[in-house]
Amino acid sequence: MHIHPKLTLIGAGPGDPELITIKAVHALESADVVLYDALVAPELLQYAQAAVHIPVGKRAGKASVSQDTINALIVESAHRYGHVVRLKGGDPFVFGRGFEEKEFAEIHGIETAVVLGISSIMLPGLFGIPLTCRGVNQSFTVVTATTKEGVLSNEVLNAAKYSPTTLYFMGLAKIESIVEEYIKNTRTELPVAIISKGSHVDGGVLKGTVGNILGLVEKHQPEAPALLVFGEGAQYATQYFQSDILWEENRVVA
Amino acid sequence: MHIHPKLTLIGAGPGDPELITIKAVHALESADVVLYDALVAPELLQYAQAAVHIPVGKRAGKASVSQDTINALIVESAHRYGHVVRLKGGDPFVFGRGFEEKEFAEIHGIETAVVLGISSIMLPGLFGIPLTCRGVNQSFTVVTATTKEGVLSNEVLNAAKYSPTTLYFMGLAKIESIVEEYIKNTRTELPVAIISKGSHVDGGVLKGTVGNILGLVEKHQPEAPALLVFGEGAQYATQYFQSDILWEENRVVA
Repeated sequence: MHIHPKLTLIGAGPGDPELITIKAVHALESADVVLYDALVAPELLQYAQAAVHIPVGKRAGKASVSQDTINALIVESAHRYGHVVRLKGGDPFVFGRGFEEKEFAEIHGIETAVVLGISSIMLPGLFGIPLTCRGVNQSFTVVTATTKEGVLSNEVLNAAKYSPTTLYFMGLAKIESIVEEYIKNTRTELPVAIISKGSHVDGGVLKGTVGNILGLVEKHQPEAPALLVFGEGAQYATQYFQSDILWEENRVVA
Repeated sequence: MHIHPKLTLIGAGPGDPELITIKAVHALESADVVLYDALVAPELLQYAQAAVHIPVGKRAGKASVSQDTINALIVESAHRYGHVVRLKGGDPFVFGRGFEEKEFAEIHGIETAVVLGISSIMLPGLFGIPLTCRGVNQSFTVVTATTKEGVLSNEVLNAAKYSPTTLYFMGLAKIESIVEEYIKNTRTELPVAIISKGSHVDGGVLKGTVGNILGLVEKHQPEAPALLVFGEGAQYATQYFQSDILWEENRVVA
């Protein structure tokens, strides 16, 4: 059989398995191999029943497959099996390293395609949090709190000074230093929300202000992955309104 | 028959009708009425064949339905028909005024639900443009260039000064003033990309720098809706790689 090596990078969305696109489902149906991240809903693999399923998840604090290994696996699998689907949480390109994988595959002569996904950037909307408010602010900044060097970047420091609303990816482990910067800039009253586990069925939101959020984190221990929202809109945080009943009471802790 | 009034706000994604979620399709299938925006792909209405279809599109420069009228239509339709699906381009909450519609419906006793969509924020990925580059920048800012007052906001001025990468929504009509701010801040060499018409089949990208983009706009006349990307990643702009062949040659104009 003639093998046509191909890579399709797919964004699986922010947790809820129904928040994947029709286009992504079609790609999964034609997959020969699926390389999937730890945060991807397992239900999604059912769309690719005939394919080989290979977990390549990277999760904070656990042994993980290196990016070099993932790149090599993509190329090897494409040449061996044909159509490789790379299933990534959220969108492949928002802090997702999708470009590195795409470029590496292309250098090795593999045809590539992309299916956009719903990034965690969209999650605040699900929890009633507007990123912009007419008359209050018209912009927001998205920043990763974790850098190669492990210290807060100038971009985080600028956001704490100037940005009306900032979304911090991978910020839960850094929240003490981030809060400290906001306090230095006398933004103690600014509303803060922590969205834990996205639209997963066990996701939730913790609501407070710069002044009290560290105490709330200590008390309620929200789990990673978490998205931090610092901005006026965070005051409107409410339960995930399409959630199952079980969570209705406990979802918002303020 | 007993009517149960309900509103589901749905993000239809950035143009390509296959970039809608499974969850949105399910909601459309159970709709009694669909109120849809001008930018929504008409193919999506096929999922709601039994429903009443009402266009409420607002497009720049054309007579449009006011927000008050849309709000009133939602409430009236929900009480008259039952399940109203409000189908909006991109995501309902990124400059989408979804919260206003949701709040208005809730005040009138209507149950609400939300289905997130792929925002135009994700589009740069489709055109090969990384919003963050490891080692270069770890943040980006999203801002609407059009304000109620019609002048550039302080947030636009700050982005032109400080933000390594900025996405301007509704910026094409304001591009001269935006470019002027970047030149004032001696960022003349910064790469710029203009993504016209998103993932629609006739979408495309125009690539340049702060220094030459106005000339390119004059020459190639990209059409609204357009997303402006000012940042290092814009230099990697390439054709929409899942596009039909017709556009392969002409899609990137540099």
